[in-house]
Amino acid sequence: MPQPINLAAKLATFTEHWQPRVVGAFNGHDLKVVKVKGEFTWHHHDDTDDFFLVLQGRLILRLPEGEVRLGPGELFVVPQGVEHCPVAEEEVHLLLIERTGTPNTGDPATAAPRRVI
Amino acid sequence: MPQPINLAAKLATFTEHWQPRVVGAFNGHDLKVVKVKGEFTWHHHDDTDDFFLVLQGRLILRLPEGEVRLGPGELFVVPQGVEHCPVAEEEVHLLLIERTGTPNTGDPATAAPRRVI
Repeated sequence: MPQPINLAAKLATFTEHWQPRVVGAFNGHDLKVVKVKGEFTWHHHDDTDDFFLVLQGRLILRLPEGEVRLGPGELFVVPQGVEHCPVAEEEVHLLLIERTGTPNTGDPATAAPRRVI
Repeated sequence: MPQPINLAAKLATFTEHWQPRVVGAFNGHDLKVVKVKGEFTWHHHDDTDDFFLVLQGRLILRLPEGEVRLGPGELFVVPQGVEHCPVAEEEVHLLLIERTGTPNTGDPATAAPRRVI
């Protein structure tokens, strides 16, 4: 039988920050959960929009125009090509959606292995 | 300044069931919120997977293989072409993601006007 994907249960399986785990697939995209804390690097994606949905905590997305602040149940899509820098003052849990194969920072040299849970 | 998309606030702007509202866009897909209650019709989508994330309530997805039961924070992707019938015994709030232009039932004749909020 097909099973639902429980996001909190998936997040409970790991503790590392900034290391997304693939939990599903949708139309050529990876559905990922990730725990983040601290400041990431400024980056952009040449070939994909970047979907962020906050599940727990508060995320700041720094953008060229200013900051977007997201709480639980809030989402934001960073358009393709737009520079952004995610910042989490406390630990934040996110659902991310990106085209399959998109590296974290938009730079192929930084692509981490694809981890599926 | 860009603003976050608050899913609960978007859902609070309407009361109708089975009438998705578009709240954002992502890589050629619509991000939609919808309130559902009761039983929909069996249908499939020829050209797209169908993404369901439960925000509130409990959703049953009837599938050829059996039922998937989803609570808050649980998601399921119905693969392209697979018949399904959503059922909500009480009102359920969902985030849906479908390719832009996908009609509700997979049948172009039933396509509802695209409502953006």
